[in-house]
Amino acid sequence: MTDRNDALNLDRQDRLAPLRDAFILRDGLIYLDGNSLGPMQACVAERVQRCLETEWGRDLIASWNTAGWYRMPETVGAKIAPLIGAGAGDVVVTDSTSVNLFKVLAAALSMRPDRRVIVSERSNFPTDLYIAEGLAAFAGKGHHLRLIDSTDELEGAIDADVAAVMLTHVNYRTGEVHDMENVTRKTHEAGAVTVWDLAHSAGALPVDLAAAEADFAIGCGYKYLNGGPGAPAFVYVAPRLQAEAMQPLSGWFGHSAPFEMRPSFEAATTIHRFLTGTPPVLSLAALDSALDIWDRVSMAAVREKSVKLCELFIELVEAQCGAHGLSFASPRDPSKRGSQVCFAHEDAYPIIQAMIARGVVGDFRAPDILRFGFAPLYVRFVDVFDAVAHLRDILETQEWRQDRYMVKSAVT
Amino acid sequence: MTDRNDALNLDRQDRLAPLRDAFILRDGLIYLDGNSLGPMQACVAERVQRCLETEWGRDLIASWNTAGWYRMPETVGAKIAPLIGAGAGDVVVTDSTSVNLFKVLAAALSMRPDRRVIVSERSNFPTDLYIAEGLAAFAGKGHHLRLIDSTDELEGAIDADVAAVMLTHVNYRTGEVHDMENVTRKTHEAGAVTVWDLAHSAGALPVDLAAAEADFAIGCGYKYLNGGPGAPAFVYVAPRLQAEAMQPLSGWFGHSAPFEMRPSFEAATTIHRFLTGTPPVLSLAALDSALDIWDRVSMAAVREKSVKLCELFIELVEAQCGAHGLSFASPRDPSKRGSQVCFAHEDAYPIIQAMIARGVVGDFRAPDILRFGFAPLYVRFVDVFDAVAHLRDILETQEWRQDRYMVKSAVT
Repeated sequence: MTDRNDALNLDRQDRLAPLRDAFILRDGLIYLDGNSLGPMQACVAERVQRCLETEWGRDLIASWNTAGWYRMPETVGAKIAPLIGAGAGDVVVTDSTSVNLFKVLAAALSMRPDRRVIVSERSNFPTDLYIAEGLAAFAGKGHHLRLIDSTDELEGAIDADVAAVMLTHVNYRTGEVHDMENVTRKTHEAGAVTVWDLAHSAGALPVDLAAAEADFAIGCGYKYLNGGPGAPAFVYVAPRLQAEAMQPLSGWFGHSAPFEMRPSFEAATTIHRFLTGTPPVLSLAALDSALDIWDRVSMAAVREKSVKLCELFIELVEAQCGAHGLSFASPRDPSKRGSQVCFAHEDAYPIIQAMIARGVVGDFRAPDILRFGFAPLYVRFVDVFDAVAHLRDILETQEWRQDRYMVKSAVT
Repeated sequence: MTDRNDALNLDRQDRLAPLRDAFILRDGLIYLDGNSLGPMQACVAERVQRCLETEWGRDLIASWNTAGWYRMPETVGAKIAPLIGAGAGDVVVTDSTSVNLFKVLAAALSMRPDRRVIVSERSNFPTDLYIAEGLAAFAGKGHHLRLIDSTDELEGAIDADVAAVMLTHVNYRTGEVHDMENVTRKTHEAGAVTVWDLAHSAGALPVDLAAAEADFAIGCGYKYLNGGPGAPAFVYVAPRLQAEAMQPLSGWFGHSAPFEMRPSFEAATTIHRFLTGTPPVLSLAALDSALDIWDRVSMAAVREKSVKLCELFIELVEAQCGAHGLSFASPRDPSKRGSQVCFAHEDAYPIIQAMIARGVVGDFRAPDILRFGFAPLYVRFVDVFDAVAHLRDILETQEWRQDRYMVKSAVT
């Protein structure tokens, strides 16, 4: 593609194009960072305002009942469930992704008390590895991580010592997708359980936890689900495990009778046992509203557009920017790639800053990755075209060499 | 006091009276349930709206730096610190009270690896006991709760087997206050560490964690701190313990270099090691704004008014409602009581419902407690007078015997 009109034509033919109108995206902004923080929908601000003014401000404590606050972990979870191949009663929204990972990993280890190994990837998102380290140290029984360096090593790493295989389904840097069904089968054959982090999967590509017979999953509300900064995270537990798998953060929201104030903990026999304390209602309300858009679109249609956006981006970058030291850093096969595309460049950081200064927001991932997320709900084909034109300009003019693009912010 | 004008006169003399204007409280509402959910201030809705429209909606991911989102756990914590006798750098806001209790109790147990007993009270808020149970079971080393039935038993329960003394400073039902300094000293003499739950203390009465040499404390953002439903909770760790005490939920926000994405966890040597995952920014923004009012008032002045409100309520109830089966269920000595007053009645539940129907919002606590919280930032002396008049009417006319007041809601 060399003509911008061709991209505009693709947008005109795109059945998902009207969904973009739901989002607040200023003119000129090309937002390819929805896999870090999804943008806001107008309905979300309205929903939070209602939660503030009417539910909290006017009705106060009564809203725990009348506005259904106490049920929000399950009602919001039920909206996420169809996106990840889960039953409506098998997902709750609560706490952060890291806290939820601690819970499900602890539950997984408790299910295999004679095993000490947690298999994961060295390239997993760091907090997942940190949480596993902290859990293993606290358990104090010699649990330890066995980290693989490439997917090829995975099968060999899953043996009879393994309690849990903890993987992020879509790698946060490269976008590489694990074969959930195959890995889960191998894991089960070895007598272990799976813990899937769906941070870069939920809302990005079809996931079928039930078909894969996955055991546990957790995921993030603020990336492709657009729930707002630090939105609460979700937890999935396979129905067959819900009455058995025990997690240690046994707070009152996980009790079988949370509001009877009984002196001893009796775990709910449902997914509710993965709840702990009082949920952050304002943040939950934002996520609740943000999820309504998924009623208007199928994950199959989202995936189809996602692949087209990513393929176009790769084609254009390789055609226009190939001479400037970029190297492709994602799987080439779309079926093995999430809804993102990465390139490596030794000056990735200032290049991303120069793009941001032009209104093209991608993400830098240490040490040398330019990461671009393509969220089909609001990214247009013309955005892809224009983003690459900016990138080409920046590389050709070496605009990124300006000092102001070199200074690192605290959060990158 | 028999004349309503006397109450109005007290309000006219009250230097704290203007603070009430900050809160959204509809005409006719007498809100004595701020110890369950504090009401909203107008500035909070504005702050959250700005967080939505400008920080998230317009500036998107950049707001992690430009709006200081990533520092909010510490900046909001610094606003709570002076209310509880802590240094500004010794408090962070994150997660729920239950999750934070798990962290500090786990850290406490790790500091006393040869000891197995957690001392607490049978009348502690149930989720605190549930969390201790879950932690003890997961640790799998024979840790167990030693529950006392009255404060008199406390000293005798703290012996050389005790790792941690875990108490709620102000009892959620009776309002009884523990002597933090004395209990902490006895705990230290026995070689154990203290974990204080300040849910009903922070913003309710002066607390001086540093003077008491307390080790750990956690508390709630949505009661007397008015941070909104499910507001994130706080954690305090004594400065002398921050580089030593380790908690197991070691997520990336607790890393010494959170955004460098290092492969292994290296705990921050500060209070930040008690952070775990990404904080719920919208809920944090609400709490952040809600705390600004404390710049306008001292805890000593709050306490002085609190005692007067509670004493007036007790005097009026005993004078006007004594014949109707109510029995006083809080400490008589104001110095041993938080900012709440409780009465027991076998029909406490429908009586509270009948009061709520008249716009007097108190709280029922199982099995038979009418609980009334007096938050001096917005409760007036005339509210106390009117609340008792309603209670007297309800008891005299037996209005509470109507069927509609008998039906229990899911959350009480």
